[in-house]
Amino acid sequence: MIPAIEIIIVGNEILSGRTIDRNSLYMIEGLSRSGFSVRHVSVDGDDPGDLIREFQAAVTRSNVVLVTGGLGPTSDDLTIQAAADAFGKTLVLDEIALSKIAELFRRRNRPMSDSNRKQAMIPEGARAIDNPVGTAPGVRMVVGETRFFFLPGVPSEMRIIFDTSILPELTADFDAERVDTEAVRVTGISESELYDRIRHLPGAREAFAYYPSPEGILVSIRTIPGSPAPAHELRTEVERILGDRVYSTRGESLEEVVGKLLIERAFTLGIAESCTGGLVAHRITNVPGSSAYLLAGVVAYSNESKQRILSVPADLFVLHGAVSPEVAAAMAEGVRAITGADIGISTTGIAGPGGETPTKPVGLMYTGLSTAKGTETRRLQFAEDRLINKSRMSQAVLDILRVFLERGT
Amino acid sequence: MIPAIEIIIVGNEILSGRTIDRNSLYMIEGLSRSGFSVRHVSVDGDDPGDLIREFQAAVTRSNVVLVTGGLGPTSDDLTIQAAADAFGKTLVLDEIALSKIAELFRRRNRPMSDSNRKQAMIPEGARAIDNPVGTAPGVRMVVGETRFFFLPGVPSEMRIIFDTSILPELTADFDAERVDTEAVRVTGISESELYDRIRHLPGAREAFAYYPSPEGILVSIRTIPGSPAPAHELRTEVERILGDRVYSTRGESLEEVVGKLLIERAFTLGIAESCTGGLVAHRITNVPGSSAYLLAGVVAYSNESKQRILSVPADLFVLHGAVSPEVAAAMAEGVRAITGADIGISTTGIAGPGGETPTKPVGLMYTGLSTAKGTETRRLQFAEDRLINKSRMSQAVLDILRVFLERGT
Repeated sequence: MIPAIEIIIVGNEILSGRTIDRNSLYMIEGLSRSGFSVRHVSVDGDDPGDLIREFQAAVTRSNVVLVTGGLGPTSDDLTIQAAADAFGKTLVLDEIALSKIAELFRRRNRPMSDSNRKQAMIPEGARAIDNPVGTAPGVRMVVGETRFFFLPGVPSEMRIIFDTSILPELTADFDAERVDTEAVRVTGISESELYDRIRHLPGAREAFAYYPSPEGILVSIRTIPGSPAPAHELRTEVERILGDRVYSTRGESLEEVVGKLLIERAFTLGIAESCTGGLVAHRITNVPGSSAYLLAGVVAYSNESKQRILSVPADLFVLHGAVSPEVAAAMAEGVRAITGADIGISTTGIAGPGGETPTKPVGLMYTGLSTAKGTETRRLQFAEDRLINKSRMSQAVLDILRVFLERGT
Repeated sequence: MIPAIEIIIVGNEILSGRTIDRNSLYMIEGLSRSGFSVRHVSVDGDDPGDLIREFQAAVTRSNVVLVTGGLGPTSDDLTIQAAADAFGKTLVLDEIALSKIAELFRRRNRPMSDSNRKQAMIPEGARAIDNPVGTAPGVRMVVGETRFFFLPGVPSEMRIIFDTSILPELTADFDAERVDTEAVRVTGISESELYDRIRHLPGAREAFAYYPSPEGILVSIRTIPGSPAPAHELRTEVERILGDRVYSTRGESLEEVVGKLLIERAFTLGIAESCTGGLVAHRITNVPGSSAYLLAGVVAYSNESKQRILSVPADLFVLHGAVSPEVAAAMAEGVRAITGADIGISTTGIAGPGGETPTKPVGLMYTGLSTAKGTETRRLQFAEDRLINKSRMSQAVLDILRVFLERGT
């Protein structure tokens, strides 16, 4: 049976806009990879009446109900009580769950509080699901033909329970839909230019969807039933047309692609950042195992630190200014020299707000890429706010590094 | 009257994970700034039956229903038809809307297709809302006591209609809630410990809400009507009880607080990072004007770079290992020396996965803080995945710096 699946997100913080819900997207993506689709998502506040009504309605429309949030120890965490009330159950203490919570506090060498005891109370007939990284266990409860899974709202806890307990159970017990899709990730091209270059492909109007972000554009391609052009053929065509603007067709981030290329080619890396302020190093080090290729990064924010740490010659600042191809080149060469890395990359620019000059607007950036064979620089212009500029600037320099590594020069 | 407001997001692309819903957050934030709150959000696919059921349920629970998506010209855009069907209306052609669509195509010098004519069909008795930037007009429809507003799913179109038509109408016709709230941001304390320390305060159960994240916990306090303890008094009590665990009561991020303190005390900063991989520098440089106090950061990922750039003595690695208080101290001292900064801070630890030793588990971190008066180190233990560990580790070292700066030593 293909299950009707729905998600219920609980929390005033989502409805008030103070917290962005990332849990529903994580579950949707995980379910999608396993061939399941979600029929309905709803977001409710921490109001017992609303939750009871929502849970009762869920039984009438879904086989699987995934609920996140409101399992914490505090008085505004009401999800489990509402679940019990919705179906006329009482809460009972789960001794195993309680002993696991106590064990976690022993490991952390901290006293367990009375409020944590509440987290071991579950509806009669329900089952606690082990939470390896936090105090709140998940709860599995069956009502008629409907399975409810209650998960903590803390993303790290939700994710591990979802991945290790929920998804395996659903995969074992239900049939998946098989939707044939391809995902092409591109960067360094505008959405309208991208669209103009690929929209003439057969069936493009129905088969393609475009999802832009500061990290580029995701082109999602699906096989339309009865179409002469299946998704994998369209993907090949898109790759041919866009050439090196495509950085992944396997769902990887740009920093993962760069990491794999560095390992393949046995190159080490040094990073010298000014305008990106550490974000390039942060992204590179988000990839597990990056210590194999990243030797060091330098965030040389002041001119003096560019001189002292990276040995950028002082006269370059006078002659060309800190935001110049000359300084970008000297930074890339400098970080290669002090780290002994095969490749040095650099960023210098104006993230904004403020800092512009008559000839150098906010969003201007120069990058440098230095190897034993020489140094190249590139000029780029962005026009967003500080955080988005940092993000786009980091994307640009990582993409320049990717293209260099792919060319094999 | 204070209205019950709900949002319905329509679109298979949201439920499949191919598109992230940003429209609900935009509307929630806009409503919140005007003093309105949202009671419920739901996401439905492009299924006529589901939409009809959702619209009929919305009438029973809300005064204002904001619907986005499914207004396009293609065959999978079904929202308006479903709205008509839900309440037994027929669709009629709106001549003014049609002429505006035709005008837009003339301006763009493109032929208008028959499918665009569909976008001028609205339920009888409803009213089209001008869309200055796209082909799909919005639609306003009243059912009993409930006002429906149907908006395009394209964010730029949704936003302009929401800002220029919907929000002004709601502000004119409804009362906003004037909720008196205070926000206390704390870090370095678990949610359950926090709860145990402040839950005895008068009215805490109703007045307090807790929002944990890797950047700490936000305690939101509101004045409950009729309560003897208004929000600002409770906030003062929470500050007294939690002492230096409170880092802001004005909505600032920790890096903003640290930046203000550095400027106040006229101190400059150097950062030496290992396990946090550039994230500390990235956060510091997210604050506009941070170049006034951040001289430089060094991401010393390899032992050799810790020696070469930061002058960490080689024998420390042999005697104590890279993850040790001795190396943390030498890194903080080293970055202070090479940058000439007043304060040097450092991180060395194991972000994971992998890299642990029998005595040094994943999540272990040492921090260093060095000034002309001496160097302090701290041992911390986290237990999450790589990205969350990096986040919590960066939070911890920034908080150590904050407390140091606040003490004024």
